[in-house]
Amino acid sequence: MHIGLVGLGKMGANMRTRLRAAGIDVTGYDRNPDVTDVPSLEALVEALPAGERIVWVMVPSGVITDAVINDLAGLLSSGDIVIDGGNSYYQDDQKHADVLTELGVDFLDAGVSGGVWGLENGYGLMVGGDEAVVAKVMPVFDALRPEGPRAEGFVHAGTVGAGHFAKMVHNGIEYGLMQSYAEGYELLAAKDLVTDVHGTMRAWQRGTVVRSWLLELLVKALEQDPGLGEIDDWVEDSGEGRWTVDEAIDLAVPAPVISAALFARFQSRQEESPAMKAVAALRQQFGGHAVKPAGTTGPVTGTPPAQSL
Amino acid sequence: MHIGLVGLGKMGANMRTRLRAAGIDVTGYDRNPDVTDVPSLEALVEALPAGERIVWVMVPSGVITDAVINDLAGLLSSGDIVIDGGNSYYQDDQKHADVLTELGVDFLDAGVSGGVWGLENGYGLMVGGDEAVVAKVMPVFDALRPEGPRAEGFVHAGTVGAGHFAKMVHNGIEYGLMQSYAEGYELLAAKDLVTDVHGTMRAWQRGTVVRSWLLELLVKALEQDPGLGEIDDWVEDSGEGRWTVDEAIDLAVPAPVISAALFARFQSRQEESPAMKAVAALRQQFGGHAVKPAGTTGPVTGTPPAQSL
Amino acid sequence: MHIGLVGLGKMGANMRTRLRAAGIDVTGYDRNPDVTDVPSLEALVEALPAGERIVWVMVPSGVITDAVINDLAGLLSSGDIVIDGGNSYYQDDQKHADVLTELGVDFLDAGVSGGVWGLENGYGLMVGGDEAVVAKVMPVFDALRPEGPRAEGFVHAGTVGAGHFAKMVHNGIEYGLMQSYAEGYELLAAKDLVTDVHGTMRAWQRGTVVRSWLLELLVKALEQDPGLGEIDDWVEDSGEGRWTVDEAIDLAVPAPVISAALFARFQSRQEESPAMKAVAALRQQFGGHAVKPAGTTGPVTGTPPAQSL
Amino acid sequence: MHIGLVGLGKMGANMRTRLRAAGIDVTGYDRNPDVTDVPSLEALVEALPAGERIVWVMVPSGVITDAVINDLAGLLSSGDIVIDGGNSYYQDDQKHADVLTELGVDFLDAGVSGGVWGLENGYGLMVGGDEAVVAKVMPVFDALRPEGPRAEGFVHAGTVGAGHFAKMVHNGIEYGLMQSYAEGYELLAAKDLVTDVHGTMRAWQRGTVVRSWLLELLVKALEQDPGLGEIDDWVEDSGEGRWTVDEAIDLAVPAPVISAALFARFQSRQEESPAMKAVAALRQQFGGHAVKPAGTTGPVTGTPPAQSL
Repeated sequence: MHIGLVGLGKMGANMRTRLRAAGIDVTGYDRNPDVTDVPSLEALVEALPAGERIVWVMVPSGVITDAVINDLAGLLSSGDIVIDGGNSYYQDDQKHADVLTELGVDFLDAGVSGGVWGLENGYGLMVGGDEAVVAKVMPVFDALRPEGPRAEGFVHAGTVGAGHFAKMVHNGIEYGLMQSYAEGYELLAAKDLVTDVHGTMRAWQRGTVVRSWLLELLVKALEQDPGLGEIDDWVEDSGEGRWTVDEAIDLAVPAPVISAALFARFQSRQEESPAMKAVAALRQQFGGHAVKPAGTTGPVTGTPPAQSL
Repeated sequence: MHIGLVGLGKMGANMRTRLRAAGIDVTGYDRNPDVTDVPSLEALVEALPAGERIVWVMVPSGVITDAVINDLAGLLSSGDIVIDGGNSYYQDDQKHADVLTELGVDFLDAGVSGGVWGLENGYGLMVGGDEAVVAKVMPVFDALRPEGPRAEGFVHAGTVGAGHFAKMVHNGIEYGLMQSYAEGYELLAAKDLVTDVHGTMRAWQRGTVVRSWLLELLVKALEQDPGLGEIDDWVEDSGEGRWTVDEAIDLAVPAPVISAALFARFQSRQEESPAMKAVAALRQQFGGHAVKPAGTTGPVTGTPPAQSL
Repeated sequence: MHIGLVGLGKMGANMRTRLRAAGIDVTGYDRNPDVTDVPSLEALVEALPAGERIVWVMVPSGVITDAVINDLAGLLSSGDIVIDGGNSYYQDDQKHADVLTELGVDFLDAGVSGGVWGLENGYGLMVGGDEAVVAKVMPVFDALRPEGPRAEGFVHAGTVGAGHFAKMVHNGIEYGLMQSYAEGYELLAAKDLVTDVHGTMRAWQRGTVVRSWLLELLVKALEQDPGLGEIDDWVEDSGEGRWTVDEAIDLAVPAPVISAALFARFQSRQEESPAMKAVAALRQQFGGHAVKPAGTTGPVTGTPPAQSL
Repeated sequence: MHIGLVGLGKMGANMRTRLRAAGIDVTGYDRNPDVTDVPSLEALVEALPAGERIVWVMVPSGVITDAVINDLAGLLSSGDIVIDGGNSYYQDDQKHADVLTELGVDFLDAGVSGGVWGLENGYGLMVGGDEAVVAKVMPVFDALRPEGPRAEGFVHAGTVGAGHFAKMVHNGIEYGLMQSYAEGYELLAAKDLVTDVHGTMRAWQRGTVVRSWLLELLVKALEQDPGLGEIDDWVEDSGEGRWTVDEAIDLAVPAPVISAALFARFQSRQEESPAMKAVAALRQQFGGHAVKPAGTTGPVTGTPPAQSL
């Protein structure tokens, strides 16, 4: 089998390596001349067998994915297949499918999980699209997914969009899981009684109810940097957490945990919180409560205690 | 009527003024010689008519209230009445009542709301204890409470402890209300479209569903300091919010809003969040995601974008 | 002054009454022949002075508002003014403005708060659009807004869209406020110690920090139906709470309280919670914990206690 | 080695089996004559070597654990060791240690995780107490813990109380993890696009970021009961989630996710929500909004739409 792979960033390059190791020929294209196999998208398309080309797109979601799919629409022909393996918003999938289907080109959306570890462990795959098209691409999926039963690392989740929807929910869950461990970590670290925080989390790796791959990663992080002194408490969000909460709102599904995890990230990136300034201002208004003037770093001075004997 | 008032801090001193203005004789005692009327608690007790003394205690909750009530127990006699008007934990009330009742001294607990504005507006009062004792102290309550129908500024909420329980819940609600306005303020302030944030909140004061006294205070604060540039986003919590959530947990009452408001205050006081460091560390582990090294202040550098074309 | 008013539902009809009481001529149109003043939108437009017509639209947001504004675009002429006073999504305002501006018709968006009480108390108004257009409509705003200083019941919040944005945030805050009182109510009701829940909330109306119009309404509701036995715990959401949280996500503003209030409403409408079934199933898997078989109503039976001595 | 084991419920009986399989002699006592090895606690103590007895207590936390430890205090002698392996509140540990230490009896607290699966997989162990005492009991811990490196299934977390504290936090995290998967499950189930919910979660078991033991259990549950139609959405809480949030409040650690998970359980057990009745009542007061009269099951009737054209 011989496929094209557009986008050779961290994920794409690793996937190329894994696919080739599984015996699949891969022609990769990237704007970065240091990593690309061919000089252009046209060259990539020409390298593949017309009418049965399979092109896996692995580029940033949004405008870049839009552009690549539009470019491919101008180059591919009936019978070819495009798979969007990036983190696209699931509502974009039908648009991409529509553009391609008109030309007789089939489209699949594939949610890909596993991060930098996927090269070695394989990637968890969630795919949306037509059954027949999925079947044609199955050797590629089998090469990418982890060893073990196919059903434990691959799913045909539904029609177009279902793959990215499943990946989006996967990432929303991930937000909640990470925040759960993080809150537990902070509780352990805040308690004098517990003298071995790293050891405690390390001991949770076998036999306990909370054992997981994320826990193993947190243990590894604590091993490398006990006390996490070398890392800032600033946490980016990738967009999929936002989409998950938007979707919860749209479907009227209560999502208190996933949304709390998302808001904690927003908070982590604020130099100062306008909301909490407002609360501080309110307290000052009604109670003459102690506040910190902006820019102070020392202890709170301000008003004397409210009551004295 | 002639009563004793122990504790002449910000609240106590104002209450003395309001009581006297209503024609009630007040002998106040405070350790601070500048504000006290008598040199000692003994002198305060002696100044009142034995067997029908009314002593209002208005000191910080916890050990200081415990100490004052114990001291009073050694000085008062059967038929006297003690009212704890501080912010005591409601579960302490029965203990205080037990100490005093054994001596024939009656006890009431009074939740007092209104802050520094109470002097002028009157204080909202929530009282726990026996009906007959409440009736004896009613002239004092009537002098302290706001003008208007008694039932709109005073309640005999239940037996001993009910007054402070009601005040605790009142404060828990207050946390939720303040956070609601604060989140709304931040949303307005974050939106370019809205060019008059202060004016918008000011316009909510009449006719709208969200009009309230707290809103008026926030408008006042924005008048004094548009943009809230002079205040830090550091918010203390008084203890009653914690008690409210503890109580919700004990009663199995869902309290997502009051607890979120409480946690927002905790967060506001953290120099850095151990939990969010853990989340950042996790993201770095599985995805090689960008993190901010501790101590950096500039823009995030770190890893290159995950995918490039 | 003579204006047109499209939509004579509960809100529109009350506004017509209030405007007329203030000496403003109003020609109202509604599809309902029992309440309309004229038989058609055309008739409404003809009744107004060309080139200086003011038409206030007060119909359900979304497709109906779209349709009315499109119809008006076909009937109005340069110099006329349309005000959308409904609960439109603020992002629709610019679209409506674009349609009208092309014809020389000016557009304002007005957030209107006050519900059924507005007839008597006046309506809180938040307006977006050009200053000069706002000035022309000011007599209408002055007639609708509550008595008192204009700035306490009216704001020109910014350009087109700012009025509805402010109203949206107002409603988001409202969600948080209502949930705060509701959690406090449940805590009081759950505690045996408190024997007078209605009286306690009634007493908060004067002097306390939590006094507000919403509190007064809750007291009124408890007066009419102590124990709230006649009302179901099913709570609709109007859409503006959802938009507020969507906006918070878009602006990366933490909104833990408003979102918790929204999710509580979603939860209130679920016959059963798929999420909590999943949690129950998980507990059964790992611990053999007691679960309730679907459809049971009696006490939980199930597995025996986990440990016995 | 020969130890005593008090409490042969689901957990205790399994632990006896696992210990014996590892070559440790166990004399078990339970009030239930069908499972006990000896007729009384006295008989259990007599069966063990004085001065070096090891008694593992595995009974329900609270009064029953208190009683067993008090009974043991009357029977044991200097040099003996008691381990409390139940789910005791960590603040009780020091009390139990004090009672025993006075008699020269050593005390360890052990948090034990693994549920019904521990028999086969081994139990995750978190232990508090003195190093020397921990060393003496190590063969027991080694027999109970999972295979693999000791540090991945066992930790000496700190002094007395640290074991149960760590277990409490473990369970708090567990609440957050379970709720995260549950919210994700509900989102998948609510979306028509996703036609294979069970298959999607099953596919997350390998390669993905969210893979974990809890996920495997949820997949198992969905295998046995697709759609979870046979289980009610009623979820008990064991107490440790409550303690975790109480502790977060005490330590001023923000715990938005763990508390949201706890409150979701409270909510799941409410026949009706007083809070949401209050919100519904409020909406009716200010807006004449549609409400459901108590006891109705059909569609909402009530007021007509707020606005009509």
